[in-house]
Amino acid sequence: MSLTELLSIAEAEALIAQHMPSFGSERIRLDRAAGRILRQAVHAEHDHPPFDRVMMDGIAVRWSASLPREFTLAGSQMAGMSMQTLADATGCIEVTTGAMLPIGCDCVIPVEQLRRDSAHYQLIDGYQPSRGQFIHARASDCVAGTRLLEAGMRIGAPEAALLAANGLASVEVGKTPSIAIVSTGDELVDVGSSLGEGQIRRSNDIAIATALRLHGFDRIALEHIADDVAATQDRLTRLLGEHDVLILSGGVSMGQRDYVPAALDALGVRRVFHRIAQRPGKPMWFGIGPRQQAVFALPGNPVSALVCAIRYVKPALLVSLGMKPAPTEVVRLEAEVDTNPMLTCFVPAYVQTDAQGRSVARPVPARTSGDFSALPHTHGVVQLPPGNARVPAGSVVEFHRW
Amino acid sequence: MSLTELLSIAEAEALIAQHMPSFGSERIRLDRAAGRILRQAVHAEHDHPPFDRVMMDGIAVRWSASLPREFTLAGSQMAGMSMQTLADATGCIEVTTGAMLPIGCDCVIPVEQLRRDSAHYQLIDGYQPSRGQFIHARASDCVAGTRLLEAGMRIGAPEAALLAANGLASVEVGKTPSIAIVSTGDELVDVGSSLGEGQIRRSNDIAIATALRLHGFDRIALEHIADDVAATQDRLTRLLGEHDVLILSGGVSMGQRDYVPAALDALGVRRVFHRIAQRPGKPMWFGIGPRQQAVFALPGNPVSALVCAIRYVKPALLVSLGMKPAPTEVVRLEAEVDTNPMLTCFVPAYVQTDAQGRSVARPVPARTSGDFSALPHTHGVVQLPPGNARVPAGSVVEFHRW
Repeated sequence: MSLTELLSIAEAEALIAQHMPSFGSERIRLDRAAGRILRQAVHAEHDHPPFDRVMMDGIAVRWSASLPREFTLAGSQMAGMSMQTLADATGCIEVTTGAMLPIGCDCVIPVEQLRRDSAHYQLIDGYQPSRGQFIHARASDCVAGTRLLEAGMRIGAPEAALLAANGLASVEVGKTPSIAIVSTGDELVDVGSSLGEGQIRRSNDIAIATALRLHGFDRIALEHIADDVAATQDRLTRLLGEHDVLILSGGVSMGQRDYVPAALDALGVRRVFHRIAQRPGKPMWFGIGPRQQAVFALPGNPVSALVCAIRYVKPALLVSLGMKPAPTEVVRLEAEVDTNPMLTCFVPAYVQTDAQGRSVARPVPARTSGDFSALPHTHGVVQLPPGNARVPAGSVVEFHRW
Repeated sequence: MSLTELLSIAEAEALIAQHMPSFGSERIRLDRAAGRILRQAVHAEHDHPPFDRVMMDGIAVRWSASLPREFTLAGSQMAGMSMQTLADATGCIEVTTGAMLPIGCDCVIPVEQLRRDSAHYQLIDGYQPSRGQFIHARASDCVAGTRLLEAGMRIGAPEAALLAANGLASVEVGKTPSIAIVSTGDELVDVGSSLGEGQIRRSNDIAIATALRLHGFDRIALEHIADDVAATQDRLTRLLGEHDVLILSGGVSMGQRDYVPAALDALGVRRVFHRIAQRPGKPMWFGIGPRQQAVFALPGNPVSALVCAIRYVKPALLVSLGMKPAPTEVVRLEAEVDTNPMLTCFVPAYVQTDAQGRSVARPVPARTSGDFSALPHTHGVVQLPPGNARVPAGSVVEFHRW
């Protein structure tokens, strides 16, 4: 297959988006919802604040142009108490932050501006309060029924605050799919085993799982399949029965032991595409199973697998949870990068904001797609479009975080 | 207390840093380590790659200036097999990606450049292989013993890959502290209860918990204390016995019901500071308990509490886990902002990268420190230093994410 017949990045993304299933939604407790994707709109349960709310500790009085300098203590209105009434313009009611403003009052004078003398409060010399001060008026933030949150938002601290303030002890969120991450290859041994001749440790599965766990995917199984056609078929049959998403690494190139595409085909997983005009990650394969399982088969090289996982798999899974896609991050290249004019190239990069507030990327090219020893000192990959053999310093390019 | 006597942001940060305890470390399974902070260095267990590694599916041959165009199949070397030997320069060994390079070979020819004819492989017309091609040489990524990861790194996908590749089935990480998040105030009711007159729902606790959970803090209890001096004392006694960190909200101003500072003092929690020259969040209090518990007492207003939590509490906790602090993010202001020349002001902002790769912040000022209804459409707060009544558009300022 010549390079010009391969899919572009945009074509691959569009095909994935067209075919990805939804994983539905579920109702979970609010205190378990950090990082989950909201699948409901949220409206104000009541006015915010629900009453004229005192903003300072002090006294509440009835303002006038001829406001007295001394007030007789006529009661107290603490936060959480039902509403008191001030009968008299020469009187005052002690108030605390968060209390309802007492009936008959329209001015709060903070304790720092007061002297207390048994049953009286005096304004300190020179202090001139104004009408309406330190009152957070009912409904001034929003009126009951205002739409506050939309489906598709990720639940961080501000969203959690609004959910709680509006009485949502449980919340409808995107249901996380059951994901199997499957490495293939006879040369791969478990992290806990000792290495024999010709062996290396499995690392793609844990790397991809870590990337997904950091985005809230919590139902992940790690599996390994040896290079054997019958074993591949058997295990894939079981995994397709048990999971919503399969992410395979290895076995998708053109070698005689690349059993994965044929095995998937035999199991009714319909190929949507195979190969993208990119480096690394050209052999990536994507298909849809008979029960709408999403199957991503990534190359086995560590850098290739990770790039495909963060560039295609993670965003597709987040959209399937219901997340509204965030704008793509862009960065300025600090140095020129040699690239392949026929392929989109992904190059690991260290990113920092400079003194002008620009995100600047220092490319850290991996020597081979098997070399991942330098990746921990990078933040992700810059995406360099095809067309030129060299992308100059100062170019603004897409950036995708690990 | 006049504004000039308050602590600056930098002074408050330095005092917190001086006093924060370490929470120690623990050994956990690698597949549970996403987002945790590494507390050990990691060195290469062996050379990477550990052998001369084949990078393509195809054949391995012995290169020479007079390389034949046809090779006799003399064996196969699959990934994971122990090393084969090529006896003869006219022969070839079938190889798969990830296999050891057979002895006697120094060139890999990819399957795309070959035609197979029973027991022979022929180079396709015009193809000229070069010596050493498609071989990922032993130790070319790094030699055994190379330092690959340092203590203080957060475990994301690339770090997890290296941990796995070097045989660390378990890993030493910062132990997360046991944290109690405590709201105070009679006006506050639980998210699941119905609202009475003068009441609002608790939301600071869940907001702070959500912010911390998203950074890997998983041992969090939510508590509520009514405005009662004896209850405050009793509950704080128990909480100081059970937790490493207390984060209180409310009860730290100057009102007659602000029992928190006195109660903490009576329990032997030594005040490190009270009040910072900032808006919102001026009344923030920080102290250290008799068992080195860190106690943060934040103001009760939702915006104030959240700003203090993300600006001081979260970074301090991450450093105490052993995390190497990341450089502070900076952004350009898209619009001018009115500010208070005596105080550092935090203003919620929406941040996006523009076409030049600059992070641009659109300020979304909250009308009051009680108004959090607009926060979900922002990404964090810009930090505007004191000194001017207005910060002009185009200024580059610190940005702190929710």
